[in-house]
Amino acid sequence: MSQFDNAAVSAHLSHVRIVMVNTTLPANIGSALRAMKTMGLSKLVLVAPKTYPHPDIDALAAGATDLIEQIEIVETLADAIKDCHLVFGTSARSRTIPWPLLDARPAAEKSISAVVNDQQDVAVVFGREDRGLTNEELAMANYHVTIPVNTDYGVLNVAQAIQVICYEMRMATLAAVESGEDEAATMPVTDTESMQWDEPLVTHEQMEQFYPHIEKMLAEIEFLDPKNPRLLPLRLRRLFGRIQLDRMEYHLLRGIFSRVQALNNGTWKKSNTDQTEDQSNA
Amino acid sequence: MSQFDNAAVSAHLSHVRIVMVNTTLPANIGSALRAMKTMGLSKLVLVAPKTYPHPDIDALAAGATDLIEQIEIVETLADAIKDCHLVFGTSARSRTIPWPLLDARPAAEKSISAVVNDQQDVAVVFGREDRGLTNEELAMANYHVTIPVNTDYGVLNVAQAIQVICYEMRMATLAAVESGEDEAATMPVTDTESMQWDEPLVTHEQMEQFYPHIEKMLAEIEFLDPKNPRLLPLRLRRLFGRIQLDRMEYHLLRGIFSRVQALNNGTWKKSNTDQTEDQSNA
Repeated sequence: MSQFDNAAVSAHLSHVRIVMVNTTLPANIGSALRAMKTMGLSKLVLVAPKTYPHPDIDALAAGATDLIEQIEIVETLADAIKDCHLVFGTSARSRTIPWPLLDARPAAEKSISAVVNDQQDVAVVFGREDRGLTNEELAMANYHVTIPVNTDYGVLNVAQAIQVICYEMRMATLAAVESGEDEAATMPVTDTESMQWDEPLVTHEQMEQFYPHIEKMLAEIEFLDPKNPRLLPLRLRRLFGRIQLDRMEYHLLRGIFSRVQALNNGTWKKSNTDQTEDQSNA
Repeated sequence: MSQFDNAAVSAHLSHVRIVMVNTTLPANIGSALRAMKTMGLSKLVLVAPKTYPHPDIDALAAGATDLIEQIEIVETLADAIKDCHLVFGTSARSRTIPWPLLDARPAAEKSISAVVNDQQDVAVVFGREDRGLTNEELAMANYHVTIPVNTDYGVLNVAQAIQVICYEMRMATLAAVESGEDEAATMPVTDTESMQWDEPLVTHEQMEQFYPHIEKMLAEIEFLDPKNPRLLPLRLRRLFGRIQLDRMEYHLLRGIFSRVQALNNGTWKKSNTDQTEDQSNA
């Protein structure tokens, strides 16, 4: 990703704030900052934190000090979200009233769509370590958001939940930025594996020279019977077809085939060969 | 989600193991267990942990005690992954040679597709807190996996990285179960991952016999200099690592290597060879 893309991602994510309500443990605030910074978010709002400031925040934030300086402290959740357009309340389960509920991924997609298309400001609100958000606080949200965890266990702490939400926000932003810049670099995506490769992959046309070469080599060393090749050519195609050779690998393998052919027809000899000994092995 | 679905999700995820190499802090092992259990994974393998057992593991695991009992301790990474078909190494950046690299999400999709469609066993390997995995360890993986973090900061600790990977594994499994992809009968054949394969894939342990064989063969025909192999062994691992050989292909290739060796040392001769003519070509 280019620096320009990275700047675009950060710019979008600056519209998504994390709100922590009545947090007890400073370590959770520090971990939240680190999770945010790692994923490119920058704005944390603390609603009446129990302990602030505290050295644990700085210790756990591990280098995200610029985010500490930007922390906003407010007295009520209403203050924290007053200038937001879209507010998500985190909830392990639906409470008193069923509420529009989204999983983390669609919630992030909805958030980033709102940011990118409408310059909306988004808040994701996390509750107390022990009892989460109150029904009154949850009712201030447009949507509730949940992380689809193991229903038999399901204890994600607040720092872990923030980690997952921030990760999904980043993934949604990357997707939005990448899809919006198609016109700049119209490189066709040939496979789902976005491999970072040092060599270009070979073409189908090159592979159509590869298969005759390996088959000829195998026929010469009588591993393949040209009169009755059975399934061998097909198996070779299936094998090397799914490998997607790059150019260097392609030449490497063809070099090996040529060496075997030269060895077989006697045009290549070992550099340090003791011919007498070789004969005695026959 | 029904209880039946939850059981199916856990059953699939039991084929995905988390491997932690030389972990220093017991707290990270405990956090990993909690992250795993929250997302429905159950198998943790520790390669030569620095401190084990330790009360911090139990404290941080917070109720995931059943997973503690299932922890497997081994001496080497090779032991940890020997019965796996698909191995991912976590890497913050590409090392000596670029390796097939997937982001966490496509890596999880590939993993769960391999589990659901082919009953493969998958490992995701995490390195030391301070220096990650060695190049040798990374070369044992079929793919590298990375979490697309903020490139200006990018310090996800090992517990956070395990959290994100486990979350993506769960999301991919939920998607597979919900789409009914785990019902083989109704499954559309769209890509190589979902191909109906006639032969089981080889294990990592078998591949550890494959690489010495091809290297020995190439040394014998002087294509590889054992005193100065340069990047060739690594390139071979990268090439055949991403191919995921099935058992027949494996024996086919090793048969070819043996034939070349026999040809080279004179223990095999062409059946219809005119020896005089061969000599004249020399």
